[in-house]
Amino acid sequence: MITVKEIAGIVGGTVYGNDETAISGLASARIAGENDLTFAADAVQLKEAANSKAQCVLTALESARISKTILKVKDLKTALTILYNAMLEMQPPAAGSIHPSAVVDPTVNVGKNVSIGPCAVIEANTKIGNHTIIGANCVLGKGVSIGANVEIYPNVTIYSNAIIGNNVRLHAGVVIGADGFGYIPHGQKVLKVPQLGTVIIEDNVEIGANACIDRGAFSDTVVSEGTKIDNLVQIAHNVKLGKNVLIAAQTGISGSVTVGDNTMMGGQAGIVDHLCIGKNVKIAAQAGVIGNVGDGQEVLGYPARKAKETIKMIAFSWWLYGNANKIRKAIKSITSDKKVQGGEK
Amino acid sequence: MITVKEIAGIVGGTVYGNDETAISGLASARIAGENDLTFAADAVQLKEAANSKAQCVLTALESARISKTILKVKDLKTALTILYNAMLEMQPPAAGSIHPSAVVDPTVNVGKNVSIGPCAVIEANTKIGNHTIIGANCVLGKGVSIGANVEIYPNVTIYSNAIIGNNVRLHAGVVIGADGFGYIPHGQKVLKVPQLGTVIIEDNVEIGANACIDRGAFSDTVVSEGTKIDNLVQIAHNVKLGKNVLIAAQTGISGSVTVGDNTMMGGQAGIVDHLCIGKNVKIAAQAGVIGNVGDGQEVLGYPARKAKETIKMIAFSWWLYGNANKIRKAIKSITSDKKVQGGEK
Amino acid sequence: MITVKEIAGIVGGTVYGNDETAISGLASARIAGENDLTFAADAVQLKEAANSKAQCVLTALESARISKTILKVKDLKTALTILYNAMLEMQPPAAGSIHPSAVVDPTVNVGKNVSIGPCAVIEANTKIGNHTIIGANCVLGKGVSIGANVEIYPNVTIYSNAIIGNNVRLHAGVVIGADGFGYIPHGQKVLKVPQLGTVIIEDNVEIGANACIDRGAFSDTVVSEGTKIDNLVQIAHNVKLGKNVLIAAQTGISGSVTVGDNTMMGGQAGIVDHLCIGKNVKIAAQAGVIGNVGDGQEVLGYPARKAKETIKMIAFSWWLYGNANKIRKAIKSITSDKKVQGGEK
Repeated sequence: MITVKEIAGIVGGTVYGNDETAISGLASARIAGENDLTFAADAVQLKEAANSKAQCVLTALESARISKTILKVKDLKTALTILYNAMLEMQPPAAGSIHPSAVVDPTVNVGKNVSIGPCAVIEANTKIGNHTIIGANCVLGKGVSIGANVEIYPNVTIYSNAIIGNNVRLHAGVVIGADGFGYIPHGQKVLKVPQLGTVIIEDNVEIGANACIDRGAFSDTVVSEGTKIDNLVQIAHNVKLGKNVLIAAQTGISGSVTVGDNTMMGGQAGIVDHLCIGKNVKIAAQAGVIGNVGDGQEVLGYPARKAKETIKMIAFSWWLYGNANKIRKAIKSITSDKKVQGGEK
Repeated sequence: MITVKEIAGIVGGTVYGNDETAISGLASARIAGENDLTFAADAVQLKEAANSKAQCVLTALESARISKTILKVKDLKTALTILYNAMLEMQPPAAGSIHPSAVVDPTVNVGKNVSIGPCAVIEANTKIGNHTIIGANCVLGKGVSIGANVEIYPNVTIYSNAIIGNNVRLHAGVVIGADGFGYIPHGQKVLKVPQLGTVIIEDNVEIGANACIDRGAFSDTVVSEGTKIDNLVQIAHNVKLGKNVLIAAQTGISGSVTVGDNTMMGGQAGIVDHLCIGKNVKIAAQAGVIGNVGDGQEVLGYPARKAKETIKMIAFSWWLYGNANKIRKAIKSITSDKKVQGGEK
Repeated sequence: MITVKEIAGIVGGTVYGNDETAISGLASARIAGENDLTFAADAVQLKEAANSKAQCVLTALESARISKTILKVKDLKTALTILYNAMLEMQPPAAGSIHPSAVVDPTVNVGKNVSIGPCAVIEANTKIGNHTIIGANCVLGKGVSIGANVEIYPNVTIYSNAIIGNNVRLHAGVVIGADGFGYIPHGQKVLKVPQLGTVIIEDNVEIGANACIDRGAFSDTVVSEGTKIDNLVQIAHNVKLGKNVLIAAQTGISGSVTVGDNTMMGGQAGIVDHLCIGKNVKIAAQAGVIGNVGDGQEVLGYPARKAKETIKMIAFSWWLYGNANKIRKAIKSITSDKKVQGGEK
């Protein structure tokens, strides 16, 4: 619990009303309970806030006259963001409880105040750090190592021997450590490429719902510190992602690609296997990257090339199309070729 | 149970044989039981139907002479579709039973005749409407609200406070309400954008397997009445989908996009954040939409533009390529530039 | 258990040290136990191998002087691949055990030595072949048929009546047999197209994490022998995949497409509904296929056309753009049109 006054100190605003009101959470008006701080970006939300159970409202609106304590800030989104992150850090560690229906192998090394949800299954020789939460119906294979303060949402599957750092958040349906995709024709048979590596996820990583991070083939797949991965992303075997990489939804990174620190990828982008993507690179949504990309480059399109040039090249293709009749005439005239046909607009 | 005669009334056909045969379901020949109506589109299926357990066969075939009751219709697919939908509506509500292995918090408000499958987990203060079916191993977070006649298939995860309407169908592996993807650099740290909204899914929505609908950041993510979403689709935070929108597999809609009623999207399309897509729009498969789209437009390509023009523009690019040698010669000749090089076909 | 000597016989290498060392598995150095064979591709891995619990190291390195038994081969990856596949075949069938928390309907026909993980749910009239492993939290609907030596990883959902062959591997989160995506406007309503078929998966198929294979509408969806499907792939209703097809991650195949034997698809490719794709076809990553593709063709781009030509066409578009000024000048000069504007580089 902190007071509204203390919150004003964190986000820098002015309190109108009772600044000793005790706050334990942050919630939209519909959901907010008595001890939550709610917020209002516009008149509609202000009315909802006025009718909510919350006793205090965070807002940047000038005319916020309701019978609740108001914490007035200059910019609502900034204030909410700072407060939300501060509260994530202040969050008292969960008390920790293991649901009786969870199936935890006796060899599992369970830290202090760990929560394990109903029907979660934790196999032999796995290690779980302090204050970590394992959601309902998750399955952790043999020899997995999970750090402290990790939150694993329901229905996540982690295959054997994966290593997960501290403060990691894995959303529902994530699959960590499934076999990579590799097959080699061998006579009449198809051989499966060995998938003997594992997955290493460093501290402060967040991975979105139903995303997949495959285990390495001959080495490990690595997701470095601070990297954030959106829903339905595919990270193939042996990929090495740098620090603070941001990867938007449905992007796919093929086997053995390396990605430098702070690189950002839009949604549905694809990267061909074995490429090196530099630091601070920006890969546009839906880009198809088929060659290495140097530090700081911005690329777009298929095959992906410098973003600004690609935009102009596409515009020029449209300009050519807009001048189709003239171009046909010009070619006919110059080449004295009566047979130039087609290309009509 | 209805009779074949009554079915003939619904789909408009003629019965040859016993029109009092009682029917309780519709099934392909391999699966059909005694009380199922089966169907035959061709000679192969007719033979399978003849050898099935079903007593009655729906067909449009002229020469359907087998020793079973035949319901002859003009167009098989139309008849099957009308009958299938009629049967979905007639379906007697499930008797309802809560499996002893399900973990249902005592505060959950369970309607009449609700079915909850084995190992499903329902957290505190959730509400479940009458005749709703919650599949095995589903996890519903705190304060979720589910309407009546909803069918949730196995292994679905619904995060806290989501609101699901009536007659909704969520296929296996769907994730509703995971955090949206938002991070802001703040000094040396990366702050997480607050994800304080929730997800509202209105009546008669169907969502395909492993699709993800993120919770809102500062407002709610909304899927309006009658909208149908295919497998592996990504709907980001704050998106507002209109009524009767159809979204094919693997399409991704970025944050805060609004989509008008009756709009259709092909598979693997992508829409950049904060755009407005109108009503009755058609977005082609794999299109990359980077600007607003007005009502009734059809768009295609990357960046997406009017579909017919884009098809013609691409054809013109191929025409230019087909005339590469002439074009090079023309440029050389006009510009008297001997250095024009490259561009060879 | 086999000896290092026997392994040398399989992969063709020379043993330095105790060739009677008994080996039961293959593992990277960090994970390897006493009875595992580990491997080293470079000096770093060799050091890790030297410090591992393994007694024997597979390597192609010349200077591998460590105090463990060395199995020296010419090419490490080839040797590992051959050995890995041989060991998969030699693997003694699992002893088989059904976890007490699994919910197995009394009508299920369970073969010999079947393993069923915690909280797995097996519905009525399902059949499970000998030595098959059903992972924790999997859900198998009514009337499903599973062959022998199948491995189903955790959190997989199989809808009713699907047929799975022998030696199939389904990774975590896979959904088999959800309804296909089909809706028909009918007056003011939208009718659901009947989804009455099922899914047939033949022997030796492997399907990646969170991939979806929809049930057929009026016929079955078929994945033929030896086909391998990567993570997050979408296979729509009625698709017929040939033998030994390879489909990389996030590719989507629309309804009623047929694909010939040995065809390969890169990641994020898409195929429009009802097309015929031949045998031995190669579809490039991100290709958008909107027409039939004949045997042996290689296609790329959107709309997908012959790969080599498409690459050259795109290069020619860039060449045109590089000569934008000259082209504009040429058009102006020939057409004596002063109004030619735009298209500037």
